[in-house]
Amino acid sequence: MKAAFYTGHKTFEIRDIPRQPPKAGEVEVRVAYNGICGTDMHAYHGAMDARIGHNRVLGHETSGTIASVGDGVDLPMGAAVAIRPLAPCGDCPACNAGLAHICHRLKFLGLDTDGALQEYWTVPAHAVHRLPEGASLEHAALTEPVAVACHDVRRGRVRAGEDVLVIGGGPIGLLIAMVAREAGAKVILSEVNPHRLGVAQALGFATLNPRETDPVAHVTDATGGKGADVVFEVSGTQAGTDLMTDVAASRGRIVMVAIHTTRPQVDLFRFFWRELELIGARVYEPEDFDAAIDLLARGVIDAKTMITGIRPLEEVSLAFADLDTDGHAMKTLVQVG
Amino acid sequence: MKAAFYTGHKTFEIRDIPRQPPKAGEVEVRVAYNGICGTDMHAYHGAMDARIGHNRVLGHETSGTIASVGDGVDLPMGAAVAIRPLAPCGDCPACNAGLAHICHRLKFLGLDTDGALQEYWTVPAHAVHRLPEGASLEHAALTEPVAVACHDVRRGRVRAGEDVLVIGGGPIGLLIAMVAREAGAKVILSEVNPHRLGVAQALGFATLNPRETDPVAHVTDATGGKGADVVFEVSGTQAGTDLMTDVAASRGRIVMVAIHTTRPQVDLFRFFWRELELIGARVYEPEDFDAAIDLLARGVIDAKTMITGIRPLEEVSLAFADLDTDGHAMKTLVQVG
Repeated sequence: MKAAFYTGHKTFEIRDIPRQPPKAGEVEVRVAYNGICGTDMHAYHGAMDARIGHNRVLGHETSGTIASVGDGVDLPMGAAVAIRPLAPCGDCPACNAGLAHICHRLKFLGLDTDGALQEYWTVPAHAVHRLPEGASLEHAALTEPVAVACHDVRRGRVRAGEDVLVIGGGPIGLLIAMVAREAGAKVILSEVNPHRLGVAQALGFATLNPRETDPVAHVTDATGGKGADVVFEVSGTQAGTDLMTDVAASRGRIVMVAIHTTRPQVDLFRFFWRELELIGARVYEPEDFDAAIDLLARGVIDAKTMITGIRPLEEVSLAFADLDTDGHAMKTLVQVG
Repeated sequence: MKAAFYTGHKTFEIRDIPRQPPKAGEVEVRVAYNGICGTDMHAYHGAMDARIGHNRVLGHETSGTIASVGDGVDLPMGAAVAIRPLAPCGDCPACNAGLAHICHRLKFLGLDTDGALQEYWTVPAHAVHRLPEGASLEHAALTEPVAVACHDVRRGRVRAGEDVLVIGGGPIGLLIAMVAREAGAKVILSEVNPHRLGVAQALGFATLNPRETDPVAHVTDATGGKGADVVFEVSGTQAGTDLMTDVAASRGRIVMVAIHTTRPQVDLFRFFWRELELIGARVYEPEDFDAAIDLLARGVIDAKTMITGIRPLEEVSLAFADLDTDGHAMKTLVQVG
């Protein structure tokens, strides 16, 4: 079978390798589609070489069908599935506390192990989520990022009628906005990129551009003087970090979605003064995957807007290069099978 | 009656002024004891002159007895009370959300209005909490700071058996430690001042001095590798801000008690990675006052250790000066009546 190996800074090699028969408790998936995410782009740029090396099959946003199963696995051949790409250790303080998704020794499939940019991908059976009858395998490649958004919205305890501000309108920010709207929230999306603002508006969201409008005055006004009940910080910037505290209502909840690689300054006085909450959110739990599958099946997620390109496995280099250079790209899928 | 007026940088004047008869909905309290807190010390140093002016009666940690009541108030003469010194506006987004204690236009009695360093103090009836039969008026002067600690522990959702780290061993840190222990938590207190470490140890708490011990290694080891389930940041320092994220367990809760006047750098990555929560906590709600009165009445709070000095009203200047210079002082009370 064909597999795309990342072999160092912006390079891939397509190789023919043998399929890996599933052992007990494993499932071999015939990969249909795999989406490329921001973490993959970091890897592509060489920023994660210390973790992943120069001989790694990437890919963790995956839909496919069951090709074969190992001993003890009861799943039907051909069934459509999405993969939750987490392999927890099962015996660390987080696992013991029922928080396997943030296991202290978590292996992320497709980064710490080989991933889905190969025709057949063998994974633990616990990572497999079945799709409903008639599900689109193309759209189901969005299950993983939608599950991130479901987890973020759940962590934020978003309730119907609440005012939500999403800071950052990339793919995850847009998905959070869609999931929060489905939960009944009134969503405003803050973004500086005019194209992304246009996408958000086309999706029906109220938007603001903090380079053109005072975002605090805008949100305060739009919420009857109260501020945002829930803020999602998806920008990873100091400006977003300032805005998140300035704009939150009394006892507002701020969900930390962004991966801040430096330590920004935070207005801790405001946390005290307005009794704010900051809530970290990382990946997803099984129920978030189930919720994402349901939202995609019901068409709540606008998959057509999100998927801005599809390339065959042979063009994996072009798929990554597109995302690097095309400011209008949201989500590129690699069609593997 | 006598009243002590703050008249500018470290000065007080005792004046004879008329009692203020309670209007409808008000209560006149004969003040017994009033504690001096960190905020009062800021005021004493002139740091709050813009807010309080140079003609202000301070004092908001108060016990006393009912001297007279206004129309519509049903409270018995002579009843022992503690005062919750908050006057919310009743019609701002916080008040409308049931969060009157963090009202956007909150008046703090004894800062924004005249306070308890006078023989008779007239306050709104909603601020009055009755004490149980036989309560010590001396100990009841601690009700306000104990209510702060009750609110902090409640905001942290501390459960029996959980590991708690308190960063900072001043009066509020020690009270939080006592309230958390009563809730069944295993408490470690982190403090750099050797005298305060000694006080915490005498109160039966495990302690660590981060200048002598690696606090992360210490807490990790003491919690079986897990970290602290709940961290109270009471230091207001960058070091405390670093420690709070380093030492928290997966999904650990960090309660922001300190008033950070600058914006420290915060490890937001750690919030994401371990799904931490930061929870702001400010003053108290009525149920926290009731809880504090109960804890004091049951002797759960070691009032004798906390109250390190008592001065009559005439010596109010000395009471403040003591706290300024005596590194061993915890809580000084002014005996007013």
